[in-house]
Amino acid sequence: MSTPLFSGLASSVVDDAALLQQPLLLLPSESNTTAQVAIVGSSVCPIESLDYEVIENDVLKADWRSRAKIQKYQYIFMKWILCFLIGLIVGLLGFFINLAVENIAGMKFVVTSNMMLTGKFMVAFLVFTSSNLGLTLLASLITAFVAPEAAGSGIPEVKAYLNGVDVPAIFSFQTLVVKIVGSICAVSSSLNVGRAGPLVHTGACVAAIVGQGGSKKFRLTWKWLRDFRNDWDMRDLVTCGSAAGIAAAFHAPVGGVLFALEEMASWWRRTLLCEAFFTTAVVAIALRALIDVCLRGKCGLFGKGGLIMYDVTSANISYHIRDVPPVLLLAVLGGILGSIYNLLLNKVLQIYCSINKKGAFRIILACSISVITSCLLFGLPWTTSCHACPSNASEPCPTIGRSGNYKKFHCPHGYYNDLASLFFNTSDDAIRNLFSKNTDTEFHISSMLIFFAACFFLSIFSYGISAPAGLFVPVIVTGAAYGRIIAMLVGSNSNLNAGLFAVLGSASLLGGSMRITVSLCAIILELTNNLLLLPLIMLVLFISKAVGDAINGNIYDIIMTLKGLPYLKAHAEPYMRQLTVGDVVRSPLHIFHGFEKVGKVVNVLKTTQHNGFPVVDNPPFSASPVLFGLVLRAHLLILLKSKTFLRTPAPAGPYAIRRFSDDDFAKWGLGHDDNIEDIELSEEEMDMYVDLHPFTNTSPYTVVETMSLAKALKLFREVGLRHLLVIPKFSGCTFEHNVTHHANSSVAPLLNRNFVEMLCLAHAENSSCGYTDATRLHARTHTEFASNVGTDQAEKAEILSSLN
Amino acid sequence: MSTPLFSGLASSVVDDAALLQQPLLLLPSESNTTAQVAIVGSSVCPIESLDYEVIENDVLKADWRSRAKIQKYQYIFMKWILCFLIGLIVGLLGFFINLAVENIAGMKFVVTSNMMLTGKFMVAFLVFTSSNLGLTLLASLITAFVAPEAAGSGIPEVKAYLNGVDVPAIFSFQTLVVKIVGSICAVSSSLNVGRAGPLVHTGACVAAIVGQGGSKKFRLTWKWLRDFRNDWDMRDLVTCGSAAGIAAAFHAPVGGVLFALEEMASWWRRTLLCEAFFTTAVVAIALRALIDVCLRGKCGLFGKGGLIMYDVTSANISYHIRDVPPVLLLAVLGGILGSIYNLLLNKVLQIYCSINKKGAFRIILACSISVITSCLLFGLPWTTSCHACPSNASEPCPTIGRSGNYKKFHCPHGYYNDLASLFFNTSDDAIRNLFSKNTDTEFHISSMLIFFAACFFLSIFSYGISAPAGLFVPVIVTGAAYGRIIAMLVGSNSNLNAGLFAVLGSASLLGGSMRITVSLCAIILELTNNLLLLPLIMLVLFISKAVGDAINGNIYDIIMTLKGLPYLKAHAEPYMRQLTVGDVVRSPLHIFHGFEKVGKVVNVLKTTQHNGFPVVDNPPFSASPVLFGLVLRAHLLILLKSKTFLRTPAPAGPYAIRRFSDDDFAKWGLGHDDNIEDIELSEEEMDMYVDLHPFTNTSPYTVVETMSLAKALKLFREVGLRHLLVIPKFSGCTFEHNVTHHANSSVAPLLNRNFVEMLCLAHAENSSCGYTDATRLHARTHTEFASNVGTDQAEKAEILSSLN
Repeated sequence: MSTPLFSGLASSVVDDAALLQQPLLLLPSESNTTAQVAIVGSSVCPIESLDYEVIENDVLKADWRSRAKIQKYQYIFMKWILCFLIGLIVGLLGFFINLAVENIAGMKFVVTSNMMLTGKFMVAFLVFTSSNLGLTLLASLITAFVAPEAAGSGIPEVKAYLNGVDVPAIFSFQTLVVKIVGSICAVSSSLNVGRAGPLVHTGACVAAIVGQGGSKKFRLTWKWLRDFRNDWDMRDLVTCGSAAGIAAAFHAPVGGVLFALEEMASWWRRTLLCEAFFTTAVVAIALRALIDVCLRGKCGLFGKGGLIMYDVTSANISYHIRDVPPVLLLAVLGGILGSIYNLLLNKVLQIYCSINKKGAFRIILACSISVITSCLLFGLPWTTSCHACPSNASEPCPTIGRSGNYKKFHCPHGYYNDLASLFFNTSDDAIRNLFSKNTDTEFHISSMLIFFAACFFLSIFSYGISAPAGLFVPVIVTGAAYGRIIAMLVGSNSNLNAGLFAVLGSASLLGGSMRITVSLCAIILELTNNLLLLPLIMLVLFISKAVGDAINGNIYDIIMTLKGLPYLKAHAEPYMRQLTVGDVVRSPLHIFHGFEKVGKVVNVLKTTQHNGFPVVDNPPFSASPVLFGLVLRAHLLILLKSKTFLRTPAPAGPYAIRRFSDDDFAKWGLGHDDNIEDIELSEEEMDMYVDLHPFTNTSPYTVVETMSLAKALKLFREVGLRHLLVIPKFSGCTFEHNVTHHANSSVAPLLNRNFVEMLCLAHAENSSCGYTDATRLHARTHTEFASNVGTDQAEKAEILSSLN
Repeated sequence: MSTPLFSGLASSVVDDAALLQQPLLLLPSESNTTAQVAIVGSSVCPIESLDYEVIENDVLKADWRSRAKIQKYQYIFMKWILCFLIGLIVGLLGFFINLAVENIAGMKFVVTSNMMLTGKFMVAFLVFTSSNLGLTLLASLITAFVAPEAAGSGIPEVKAYLNGVDVPAIFSFQTLVVKIVGSICAVSSSLNVGRAGPLVHTGACVAAIVGQGGSKKFRLTWKWLRDFRNDWDMRDLVTCGSAAGIAAAFHAPVGGVLFALEEMASWWRRTLLCEAFFTTAVVAIALRALIDVCLRGKCGLFGKGGLIMYDVTSANISYHIRDVPPVLLLAVLGGILGSIYNLLLNKVLQIYCSINKKGAFRIILACSISVITSCLLFGLPWTTSCHACPSNASEPCPTIGRSGNYKKFHCPHGYYNDLASLFFNTSDDAIRNLFSKNTDTEFHISSMLIFFAACFFLSIFSYGISAPAGLFVPVIVTGAAYGRIIAMLVGSNSNLNAGLFAVLGSASLLGGSMRITVSLCAIILELTNNLLLLPLIMLVLFISKAVGDAINGNIYDIIMTLKGLPYLKAHAEPYMRQLTVGDVVRSPLHIFHGFEKVGKVVNVLKTTQHNGFPVVDNPPFSASPVLFGLVLRAHLLILLKSKTFLRTPAPAGPYAIRRFSDDDFAKWGLGHDDNIEDIELSEEEMDMYVDLHPFTNTSPYTVVETMSLAKALKLFREVGLRHLLVIPKFSGCTFEHNVTHHANSSVAPLLNRNFVEMLCLAHAENSSCGYTDATRLHARTHTEFASNVGTDQAEKAEILSSLN
């Protein structure tokens, strides 16, 4: 008879039937139905957690306890070398992507513009549409069939990874290639998508691949990178990689570090700050060196590049207190618009989710969006009238060729089409035009309204398609248009020029949608090279974030929820304060003995999905039952694979330990773990014993059973745990070592199943002490808190089918 | 007979005599001999730790578990209001300090310059020296006799506070006032000290005082700030305050946030990032508004202010790969110079330490430094020859009056003295002159060498005096001179102008001395408003930091060590991996029973200095011994003060709990805790009982005794703990409740005594199980690991006397 007990105060013990019906305890939708193709693909895969705990067992002790000094220096040296490599590669990739996009898109615009000059409008339209369609089709095909994980921006996945979620396949080599090629195609095809998000994913991917010393699949592995094949070093490198991604996308090294810190990373240390900073410095220097090449005119249509992307400087910009009210208005409205953006994107992604499940449909979806975009970009400029060129224009008017403020489009000579200057251009050029100073009268209010509406909706409908797609640039463009509209409405009530309003508009929409402040501030400063704007930008970002937060969540969190990624938040929900850890553990707990039968180990591993098992020594091997520690599934698999079995339950001795090297315990790649099904054992072997002691982590983290869930969550999050042993407070109780359904265990449903595990050691029935009402607890335990794993699967399938 | 056991592997059990003689286990010098007057004063005070653990007991449960939603919103609202207030006050104070310094120092220079124009050199020298002496004397007197804690920069103390060290009196109202007035006097008196460090301390002080809702001493307290009277909210506010300090000192809001993040804070969350950012945004906006006032010419000699302090822009600055080698040279040498600076400062502070112990001597020291400084500043310019004014000078030459590049000093008309332009000026003007472009030929190599040497040594000798003194500005000035020297040596081998080299020189010396990278980068960018410098500055900072790190430690860490502040580092020392927590705990452990005699509680509190005590329930109150939790000294004192005593050992009942409100548990001020000596109890009361259950934290953090010290340190640091219960792994053992020297306990000497406590629950002798060799452990335990508290005091006194 199993009689788990816990010593929670009686008041917190409620009827278990009622508890099960409480909405608080309802499992959040855990099925892995992702809004985009990125995660799902065809099969639903259970998401596992990463483990940042230091494992202290005999086999690994050599590594952790007595690493030689030279090894330590080698490790530090290698880490910096890896950061350098990541920075260099990401810098080169970022430059290459920019170069490719500018040349492909530029070529397209030059060809169509030339056709339009000769009046062949229809041909131009067909060329424009078909080239866009071709590029989108290519991006969509490779994404759908080679690496579905490369769809979308990738920021939510990387963010989840850095939180300890082992998102499968996001860092594979295929994903990297598809992300780069797909991103170039998608952006060049005039879709309203950005390349910053994909670059962050690219950076993280590069970091993960470099850190692994190659790819296991392609047998490209280097032995001297062994030290980095573990979750925590990989986490550091991926953080640096994502910082490098933003740095390369916006030429913003400080912004990149801050973005990684503010938005991406869940754990952060001072050393990591330095490493990330070093990585982005390498990116900045690499870009600087490449720009020297472009300055010599060798970059084709890319032009001269330059570190500063949008120069809005007028060195003596000034603003006063009376400029604050319009800016406040802009910030508040921007926050509201940003949260509406998040809301609509969420809805659209939910619809896309079902479409993207079917292979062919997602290609059709991508193509339709491309055709609609092409039609709008080409068609909308016809709705506006031509404007006469200003006599004092700072550049040639009308512009013939690729970029420029005054696009001729269909207008007669001496006239320009203001909408075409924005639509019939790359996003970068559109932003540059909107941010430019002394162009207050260039754009007309009706054109700006059309442009704003088109950008707003196109970016919402473009994000979810099966192709790499960022959110940053579309939001910046949309925000710039919004800022210009506000500038026109405010008119002469403010000294600020319209270009400045465009910058502030972008800031407000970014703040309202992405809810990041410090890093956005740094990024915008590095984009615009104007530090005098700082107080205004800070004001805008802060207010729009506050307004947005009052309405709904951060866009990346929304996407993560849609993707079913179990993100462990830093703050506890209020209900977590009401529950103790004893309340949320589920049965059955599987305990191994120090010397265990191979058959039992195999059986338990096959029938459960738990990843950690307490190891208890019982008489006659100890005077009384002793919790020896916690053994991980991964280590059990290594042990079983090596077939280091014993005929009798006795210590295996040092020779058995020496059979294993650190290399055996190194984590190989991501999501390529061993599987119990792959290990074949004979009947005879199943009857033998294993000595689990050398493989058991002798110092697992433990909490007492009366700790509130909120406090335990803090421990999980701050220390980066995967397993937490819940131990009884009683010292005068013995483990009943022959009780079969001994326990009360495993996997806290409220902290996301599989993601973190809480293991509770229970007591035998003779222990009724403390403040506990033993009778009531009896009743409670018998109604099992949650079903076993078999049922879990069924439940999961049920939830899945109900959602589809 | 006490027989503590632990189940570590036999191999890790070494002979205890040998263990005691191991250098690893030698206590670091724990006496609180501080290098400066800041902490010490006359009496040596034991430094306690702050506690960030969530206390889950019956009395506080109401607060933590079931706070109403309206209270939550009130809390959030109040927190932002407090951030706003901190930003506003720090912005105003920063502006006021700048204004005061510029006007006082400016007036001094105008008067002396006018005298020199009429040839009265001797009078000018006397006026200069005596005004400097007077200002220094004032700063020194108030620092020495009103608030010795205000000496020095304050950054190390605030950094230690944010690490969880309860540094006494650093945030009192007197300290704030002395810091502000003293900083103005010290900087105006031409001492080579900065005002950035003091401003950080001022910011932190403002935050602490605002957060407390006033000062308990002056009875200025607001009831609605109750929520913030705890260690973790105070920590957040102080972090924001220190960010605001840097933001106000350098007009660098992003730099301020990054500085707080990189250098100051030990714990950091995303919400805190937003709050700090908001605070610095308020500072930036407040400064912007005040500059509008100055633009109207109402700030006296302060001039027009401006957000950008040193404008080195030349919009089309360019540099190429071939400029990199000289920059690398500069960075490496800067790193070496920076670490020499740290080394010398350390030596000088050690010497000053003994001088500063005696009241009168420290005043004499400060005055001597002031006189020497005045003599050097006035005398050294005479050693250089006068130079003819360049014909194409961008400003009037020679300059008459306050600032300017071409000081006339003693030269005839049409000539200028380049050393006087640097020495006979405020630090700000000197930096501006050195950073300015197109002045490559203005300064001569001999002048620069003299200036560099004078600044280098003056800043080292000025820091330790009894007055508020920052390190930032002196290092920037020295570094700028160093950069100019390198520029002259490199000559035409580089395209970069000398002003740019000065900026890079400052960066390299800052990087080499303070070892901060990202935040310095942001600060320098915000100081100079030139983003194109970014890659170069990043390169320099990174290399100089790496070079410096290879030689010695960060300047703030050095000062913290000198002050005896027990900073808990994030990384474990190698020896910590060799020890288990069971190895480092010391006896005796004092355990309370759930119902305890008042007399015993009082006795234990009086005879020990421990701050946490395990509470164990024994039969007949429970069937078997149960660890109920951990009770804090502070809560025991509250209980004793309230005299809620019982005649018999029985539950106190809810009426007893209701006698206490959250207010009783709120932390009042800093370092103003109750003392057991202040509580007077009658004989009769001493014989009564207290029910400790409602006051006991039922969910203390626990670790198993075999955990390595390194892993436990991680827990301490990440979760912000003060107490950690070390528990046995054995479940079949009973607490011997009648064993008097039961234990094996308290205060891990290696993690700094008093600072964090590890409490180990031991076993009775009948439990010998697991892998442990019981006999050897017996022997070990009898040789007591460390002496009791009485001996600690004697030991401490001994160490102290040996140091003096």
